[in-house]
Amino acid sequence: MADVLLIMGSDSDLPVVEECEHVLKEFGVSFSTRVLSAHRTPDAVKDAVTSAKPSGVKVIIGFAGLAAHLPGVIASFTTLPVIGVPLASPPLNGLDSLYSVVQMPGGIPVATMAIGSPGAKNAGLFAVSILAVANPALAAKLVQYRATMQDKVLSRDKTVQARHAG
Amino acid sequence: MADVLLIMGSDSDLPVVEECEHVLKEFGVSFSTRVLSAHRTPDAVKDAVTSAKPSGVKVIIGFAGLAAHLPGVIASFTTLPVIGVPLASPPLNGLDSLYSVVQMPGGIPVATMAIGSPGAKNAGLFAVSILAVANPALAAKLVQYRATMQDKVLSRDKTVQARHAG
Amino acid sequence: MADVLLIMGSDSDLPVVEECEHVLKEFGVSFSTRVLSAHRTPDAVKDAVTSAKPSGVKVIIGFAGLAAHLPGVIASFTTLPVIGVPLASPPLNGLDSLYSVVQMPGGIPVATMAIGSPGAKNAGLFAVSILAVANPALAAKLVQYRATMQDKVLSRDKTVQARHAG
Amino acid sequence: MADVLLIMGSDSDLPVVEECEHVLKEFGVSFSTRVLSAHRTPDAVKDAVTSAKPSGVKVIIGFAGLAAHLPGVIASFTTLPVIGVPLASPPLNGLDSLYSVVQMPGGIPVATMAIGSPGAKNAGLFAVSILAVANPALAAKLVQYRATMQDKVLSRDKTVQARHAG
Amino acid sequence: MADVLLIMGSDSDLPVVEECEHVLKEFGVSFSTRVLSAHRTPDAVKDAVTSAKPSGVKVIIGFAGLAAHLPGVIASFTTLPVIGVPLASPPLNGLDSLYSVVQMPGGIPVATMAIGSPGAKNAGLFAVSILAVANPALAAKLVQYRATMQDKVLSRDKTVQARHAG
Amino acid sequence: MADVLLIMGSDSDLPVVEECEHVLKEFGVSFSTRVLSAHRTPDAVKDAVTSAKPSGVKVIIGFAGLAAHLPGVIASFTTLPVIGVPLASPPLNGLDSLYSVVQMPGGIPVATMAIGSPGAKNAGLFAVSILAVANPALAAKLVQYRATMQDKVLSRDKTVQARHAG
Amino acid sequence: MADVLLIMGSDSDLPVVEECEHVLKEFGVSFSTRVLSAHRTPDAVKDAVTSAKPSGVKVIIGFAGLAAHLPGVIASFTTLPVIGVPLASPPLNGLDSLYSVVQMPGGIPVATMAIGSPGAKNAGLFAVSILAVANPALAAKLVQYRATMQDKVLSRDKTVQARHAG
Amino acid sequence: MADVLLIMGSDSDLPVVEECEHVLKEFGVSFSTRVLSAHRTPDAVKDAVTSAKPSGVKVIIGFAGLAAHLPGVIASFTTLPVIGVPLASPPLNGLDSLYSVVQMPGGIPVATMAIGSPGAKNAGLFAVSILAVANPALAAKLVQYRATMQDKVLSRDKTVQARHAG
Repeated sequence: MADVLLIMGSDSDLPVVEECEHVLKEFGVSFSTRVLSAHRTPDAVKDAVTSAKPSGVKVIIGFAGLAAHLPGVIASFTTLPVIGVPLASPPLNGLDSLYSVVQMPGGIPVATMAIGSPGAKNAGLFAVSILAVANPALAAKLVQYRATMQDKVLSRDKTVQARHAG
Repeated sequence: MADVLLIMGSDSDLPVVEECEHVLKEFGVSFSTRVLSAHRTPDAVKDAVTSAKPSGVKVIIGFAGLAAHLPGVIASFTTLPVIGVPLASPPLNGLDSLYSVVQMPGGIPVATMAIGSPGAKNAGLFAVSILAVANPALAAKLVQYRATMQDKVLSRDKTVQARHAG
Repeated sequence: MADVLLIMGSDSDLPVVEECEHVLKEFGVSFSTRVLSAHRTPDAVKDAVTSAKPSGVKVIIGFAGLAAHLPGVIASFTTLPVIGVPLASPPLNGLDSLYSVVQMPGGIPVATMAIGSPGAKNAGLFAVSILAVANPALAAKLVQYRATMQDKVLSRDKTVQARHAG
Repeated sequence: MADVLLIMGSDSDLPVVEECEHVLKEFGVSFSTRVLSAHRTPDAVKDAVTSAKPSGVKVIIGFAGLAAHLPGVIASFTTLPVIGVPLASPPLNGLDSLYSVVQMPGGIPVATMAIGSPGAKNAGLFAVSILAVANPALAAKLVQYRATMQDKVLSRDKTVQARHAG
Repeated sequence: MADVLLIMGSDSDLPVVEECEHVLKEFGVSFSTRVLSAHRTPDAVKDAVTSAKPSGVKVIIGFAGLAAHLPGVIASFTTLPVIGVPLASPPLNGLDSLYSVVQMPGGIPVATMAIGSPGAKNAGLFAVSILAVANPALAAKLVQYRATMQDKVLSRDKTVQARHAG
Repeated sequence: MADVLLIMGSDSDLPVVEECEHVLKEFGVSFSTRVLSAHRTPDAVKDAVTSAKPSGVKVIIGFAGLAAHLPGVIASFTTLPVIGVPLASPPLNGLDSLYSVVQMPGGIPVATMAIGSPGAKNAGLFAVSILAVANPALAAKLVQYRATMQDKVLSRDKTVQARHAG
Repeated sequence: MADVLLIMGSDSDLPVVEECEHVLKEFGVSFSTRVLSAHRTPDAVKDAVTSAKPSGVKVIIGFAGLAAHLPGVIASFTTLPVIGVPLASPPLNGLDSLYSVVQMPGGIPVATMAIGSPGAKNAGLFAVSILAVANPALAAKLVQYRATMQDKVLSRDKTVQARHAG
Repeated sequence: MADVLLIMGSDSDLPVVEECEHVLKEFGVSFSTRVLSAHRTPDAVKDAVTSAKPSGVKVIIGFAGLAAHLPGVIASFTTLPVIGVPLASPPLNGLDSLYSVVQMPGGIPVATMAIGSPGAKNAGLFAVSILAVANPALAAKLVQYRATMQDKVLSRDKTVQARHAG
């Protein structure tokens, strides 16, 4: 079974969720993606979450906007690490979803990422870092990934430094 | 069975919940009060909510602070009217719970009241007004309650008007 | 007469209000829609609201933006259940209307929905749920409506689950 | 009759309202103070406001907290200048009342002052400045009042300047 | 000389300021419009403001965005009634200007209107209402203006009421 | 060496950090606690963080208030999972630290917990859940911990249910 | 004459201003402290600011709360570096003053520090760093000051590290 | 070497950074521009910052969005004056970056400018004003720059004043 289970509250969230999937693919981490609503399909969420651990899932990532209860509801049904990505939608631009995801009461943690795209990407990376704790090969890939990111910045730095001075 | 079911996320919320109970008692509306956490006892919430309608409950009121998912989780398990009262706790003073309660996605409504005490009182009154739709005696009591409130304001107005003029 | 009375503060709000009307039509609930401003036509608001109950109206829904006083003003003239939908308009995107609608003082409740479109749809559903308390046929329709929503999500889930895995 | 009519939503607001009365007394401007709630006593608000102009009232000041509809409701019943003072109460500390008072739609202005004490004082001063437009003696008193304020600051400046240097 | 002096902080604010001018023209109230920046031309602001009263100006309106100091700076140089209109500009959409205009300290009031367009229109109406205190003809025009606004709403109400019912 | 490294920005944060330590002790997870400031001791932060992985540390938790850069700075020096706990301090009550911790750019994730006490407790639990991915005994303890929490809620529910009904 | 001129809007701000003075004294930087209000004593502010440069002042620091116009008004009268410290006062806790100080329009910069105490201390340090640009002895003192701060943190780190491990 | 060092967190920030460069060019102040990320290239940031003072850099300006740690991280490695420009990016429009840049703890100041474009321009001007403290020719240019800005406003004032009066 997949190592990481992704659950989004609505399939309109797919473009952002795919940024997370892209990272997982890049690291060769297996995942499964679901569309399940905390409010419209609460039983299906419970089924998906409670069957995750027995199936070998190690990390669950929940994506939701507005009153973004999904990551917290996922966390209520599992002791696996749950990562939450608040999504931005008008009119409050994700401030509502950020508060709903991050302000979990003591006892039921949700590891909250930034709102929207950077959060989706980072949810993937953070899931990888969790798996890497017991997987040295994956840990090495993370180190390499960082080095590549660094090189890209330094390369842009050279370009800008050469052209921008007065 | 009781007409109104009250569920709070933590018994530390009791003082605010009692303001709601007080209103229901004043109107002679039967109620039952539970302490159930959306995150710590998700199955017990589902049991309480799904058994409510068969037991004759007509309205459910959920009280919660922080990432206040409880009213939304209640609403995901019933088509009864669900009233949500966001509670204030530091450091965000209820702004987090307000957003978590009110910003429900289309399809699953939660009737949100003001944060804290005025919201708890109004949740009781709103539950009464729902029951009063099919209960003329209760509707008459609501009219009387309003008249009493009005008289109190007008009586204070007389006192202040007499003493404050320049 | 209609079971539900809808009042919007300005006819520029019509597109959002129609999302509420659409739900009511879907459930076969009769409604009447008015354009009345709390500030520009206060007497007409009072007339419409005070004549509602004698005419058989059972629930009133108010829609307003900016300093959205309309739902609260409606509630000041009736003991019928009043639902408020805060509308988003620039520059504060509905944060102003949310606070103006939801932060009602103790004694005069307004059942507040999410800002804008999801709130308009949910106002319709919540009105139906109030009427359904004393109308088993309507209550059954609500259960069916939920089931249909659930099926739509589960169907999308199948599609996504099939295509998104790595 | 009094030149200025003060209306507060609740007599718990009296301590702040008295800061406004104090200013009016200082300028010898006549006033009358009422306790009337936009939501609990809407008809009494209308009566007080519509009878104000015929009685010679020239400016009305409304004080309110939470979903502070009172100043807007006053303005809906008169073309006299209406000044609004948003009051701070927990948990949102007056942000709710500020938005409810200031974000009036085009057509019905409310002259909004700062939240709480400074706003109450300034409401008194602003009412005086309106009356002073057609009252040169009052205008002269305002100039004198400013000069006194300035002298107080300059006197404190001397004290601090003498003691604080390094 | 003009009865009302309008000062905007930048001529990019002209489209909003013209909504205010439009109201003044409609009421036949004379006005003069200036572009003066509190920060770039502080002395010119002082000159314009201190010479206003001797020239017969009765009300001053200041329009500004961002750290909108202009209305407060105007108020520091005159005891005439000063109206402030906070303007919306990205990225904070006028929340910055609203706070800068409305949160004046005790002693120096600025009558704050809504952010942007509705505020500009209302600033014009509020200036008219100040002048109307001592001008019965203008007061009568204000009453007529309200009646016309009311008729427009009621006419739209008829149209909507006829078409929207279910 | 310890499995979890805790770093707080200032020793005034100790009372909150101890809530995290308490959880780790309860689970028998080894930890080491440091006081290092991102801004005052940047080199010591780098030393502590870069030496963590070679020493066997598997998870790092950063606690910080105000412009809470510490968790992000920690994350910039390691590919280990980094958990961030925003702390509340006046005047912005942790809104500043929440944004500083959670809004990390794509590439460098910080798993953000709730502001203050519940976040500190949950940081401990989340660290345990990460370690439990490869440690079945620890995973079993987490399941037991949840069951105990649930029992406490259900026990309080019985007490309240018995006393609160009307 | 003094190198640094401090101006606060009200002498109630003295306790916070003294935290800035304390830093300046520690560095042996001469300063002069004034109490001048942007709104109550605009001419005195102009006099103090325009005479500063001729008197040898090199940096000006403005402290203000609420609609904190003082630093911006100071900046409008000088091309010297102006540092602004927003002060926290209820009910908005300095959010109003932060926006009023920092959101200056292009052309007139104010170097804004954190709200309240840390900002006052940092205003002193930043003023020192400006003077240190052309004063190597002062620059050396700043380096020493940093080293001392670092040592204090490292010493507390040792204490905590010894006692807090599990 | 250059007098001013500009560091942006990402080269997507270039358009805003160029507004700062434009000002520096206008004043003939030498600068060098880098692209370095606090999180992706922490060591390169340290190298650039610690080598700045020995190379003759006198002021450093950091530009960053989201959890904008860059200016604070720069300040942790130098006692040179550090100016921070928070950049606006969706969904929080720079509120996150403003808090991350301005709310620095006591001891490590960052001189914060307005969010985005006006802040970038003002960062340039503020850097010039720091250099001007020990450079009378530059100080004279600043005075001239102000005079030119003032003339532009007064010229627009003439145009508007001529056309806008009623």
